[in-house]
Amino acid sequence: MIDSERLLGRIRALGRIGRTPEGALMRLALTDSDREGRDAVVAWMKEAGMIVEVDAIGNIFGTWGGDAGDAPVMIGSHLDTVVDTGIYDGAYGVLAGLEVVETLRDAGATPVRPITVAAFTNEEGVRYTPDMMGSLVHAGGLALEEALATVGTDGSTLGDELRRIGYAGPLEPGTIRPYAFIELHIEQGPILAGDGIPIGAVERLQGISWQRVTIRGEANHAGTTPMRLRRDAGYAAARIVTFLHDLAHASNGSTVATVGSMAFEPNAINIIPAEATLTVDLRDADEVRLRSAEAALADFMARIADELGVGIEVERLARFSPVEFDERIVARIEEAAAELGVRARRMTSGAGHDAQMIARIAPTAMIFVPSEGGISHSPREHTSPEDLVTGANVLLGVVRRLAFDGLGGSGGGRRGSG
Amino acid sequence: MIDSERLLGRIRALGRIGRTPEGALMRLALTDSDREGRDAVVAWMKEAGMIVEVDAIGNIFGTWGGDAGDAPVMIGSHLDTVVDTGIYDGAYGVLAGLEVVETLRDAGATPVRPITVAAFTNEEGVRYTPDMMGSLVHAGGLALEEALATVGTDGSTLGDELRRIGYAGPLEPGTIRPYAFIELHIEQGPILAGDGIPIGAVERLQGISWQRVTIRGEANHAGTTPMRLRRDAGYAAARIVTFLHDLAHASNGSTVATVGSMAFEPNAINIIPAEATLTVDLRDADEVRLRSAEAALADFMARIADELGVGIEVERLARFSPVEFDERIVARIEEAAAELGVRARRMTSGAGHDAQMIARIAPTAMIFVPSEGGISHSPREHTSPEDLVTGANVLLGVVRRLAFDGLGGSGGGRRGSG
Repeated sequence: MIDSERLLGRIRALGRIGRTPEGALMRLALTDSDREGRDAVVAWMKEAGMIVEVDAIGNIFGTWGGDAGDAPVMIGSHLDTVVDTGIYDGAYGVLAGLEVVETLRDAGATPVRPITVAAFTNEEGVRYTPDMMGSLVHAGGLALEEALATVGTDGSTLGDELRRIGYAGPLEPGTIRPYAFIELHIEQGPILAGDGIPIGAVERLQGISWQRVTIRGEANHAGTTPMRLRRDAGYAAARIVTFLHDLAHASNGSTVATVGSMAFEPNAINIIPAEATLTVDLRDADEVRLRSAEAALADFMARIADELGVGIEVERLARFSPVEFDERIVARIEEAAAELGVRARRMTSGAGHDAQMIARIAPTAMIFVPSEGGISHSPREHTSPEDLVTGANVLLGVVRRLAFDGLGGSGGGRRGSG
Repeated sequence: MIDSERLLGRIRALGRIGRTPEGALMRLALTDSDREGRDAVVAWMKEAGMIVEVDAIGNIFGTWGGDAGDAPVMIGSHLDTVVDTGIYDGAYGVLAGLEVVETLRDAGATPVRPITVAAFTNEEGVRYTPDMMGSLVHAGGLALEEALATVGTDGSTLGDELRRIGYAGPLEPGTIRPYAFIELHIEQGPILAGDGIPIGAVERLQGISWQRVTIRGEANHAGTTPMRLRRDAGYAAARIVTFLHDLAHASNGSTVATVGSMAFEPNAINIIPAEATLTVDLRDADEVRLRSAEAALADFMARIADELGVGIEVERLARFSPVEFDERIVARIEEAAAELGVRARRMTSGAGHDAQMIARIAPTAMIFVPSEGGISHSPREHTSPEDLVTGANVLLGVVRRLAFDGLGGSGGGRRGSG
């Protein structure tokens, strides 16, 4: 079993790094605060006897045990955060990985395969787009040069900032190809907390479709323009919002749809909107259903463009197909939970995670722990200490199985090794 | 008949005053550009032999003819503009009044009552709220001190700016109480142009209800929050927009409803909106129907607040009851048009005008001329020279009737006097 106090103490310690004068947590990727957080984790890795390597996109890898030449069992997540948020998102997965290594080391275990704890660069995508960038580069999905040239919301260039904070490492991205990959993360949704289940065995991750929709109508006087002569971009936008809501509701929980951002032009009380811009976030765990939702939206927009006399333009911002995780690892998660006598539930991740990128190059799955009230990306993000410890112990059980017995599992034959 | 070239030349000349370096027309109230425009009009009034008085809110009154002690027939509108707009809104009514006086004077006419041309301060309300301020103060609907203390969007104080541009006059507001009031204005709507009718005899003005609606839901992750657990402020806002649209459509043209302004918080693509703020512009020529539309909206909002688990707060921004204009003046407008052999149509003003304020203290009506395409508050605002001249000639006919024969009319008995 892991050392609860050591794990919880480190989560709290890392959570104190990157506080604004007002007390808000904000470790945006490649800022000084991110460097401080990275420095702390690297120091802990070294104290734990791990060999630390940093690659050219700033991903940190701490490796312990096994034969140096073998593909490692990799545990990974991220250290960067969004603006004014909680202490668990990302940090928990990295620190629990470190805790697993220390627990095995303290127990004198000698795993067959190396164990690598990874902290991937810029998972949140707040300062630099796209999100999940470090793991995407590691998996070969984005060229290093392109990633380094990314210009941030503050005008900075990612490559410059990476050098500035001392995390432009010599390792070529993708060099460490995992035998298996596992990410432990808070759920960031209400399902586990709502059902009182401590462990989610994440078997798939929703596909994501992001679009920006721009509607062009005609500005006109709100008092003198009869309804039938209007070309109201704002009304067309409202129709899209309600259409998406109804579409998602009719899917019985498989599709979720969100219009999170909206702007009217000229945005005056007595002028009919000439332009409305909105974003669409559509997700579904099934690629066929996701495509069908996209098509239904496109049909609807063509219809109302005609009906309302407005022009509608769509820009695709991001598109990830659903990811099916590795059934063998998911089964190991269920076994590890059962061994601890805690309930686990198979589930789908609604959010994007580094694991979805690494799934392109290695067998992968995720473990979720409950988020109270489903709240995340907020200072009110919370997971109970008990759940945090249970999640880390399940991770320990899974890593033990993978690093000693391999993906096939052994039914627990070498459980005593930790 | 009026001197077409003199009128059109002055409209064009005034339209050159207050141009930005990019060429956009922008004579916001009490700016240097507004002063330049006022100075030009005051100079023209003096050239026409009018006695010019300025009151303490900056309203300009040029008076000619009649007995100095008698209540004048007043022709009025405004000289200030919105941002980047056309040359007719407001300016046309003031300059046509000036043209009517010059035409009568050139013809050696001697009206029984004085004729006063008024240019009211800050009709547009862009820099200082409320709009129609000068005429509202003149009619006793807003205390002078309160108006002078108004702080503008640029942080300036109205009273200071009025003194700075030299238009804080000595006359007490409301001193010149009109015998009758008439405002000639472009329609700013599509009705006359659409039906090919050159003159609108405006018999009433719509009531206006402005509200700001703030909806509070809960921010949550767009991917992990099931639809049934959402409290989406943006979706609630969209429901209000479509409700208002349907309500106005169902009114068969009596109610118009506009949501011109909208903002989401935190306004991020992958976060369910925690807050949405929108404005509601409801208008109806009938007070009972306007109240019924307001009540239907309030009921609907209470219902969806409950259904969607959001909080909805409403702030009333402005409320004007519909105004019924003076039937006698409306009849004089129809007579004057008939005399010229042009078609006139009785109609309702959808926009607010200075005339609605003066209607509180004197018999009042308005004359509209067509706005091509219904466009206003835009550089594309346009009325043909022919329609501008026709409107001014109808105004001449109405003023002749009122200043020589009085409100009752005479069937044209003294028409030869002009």
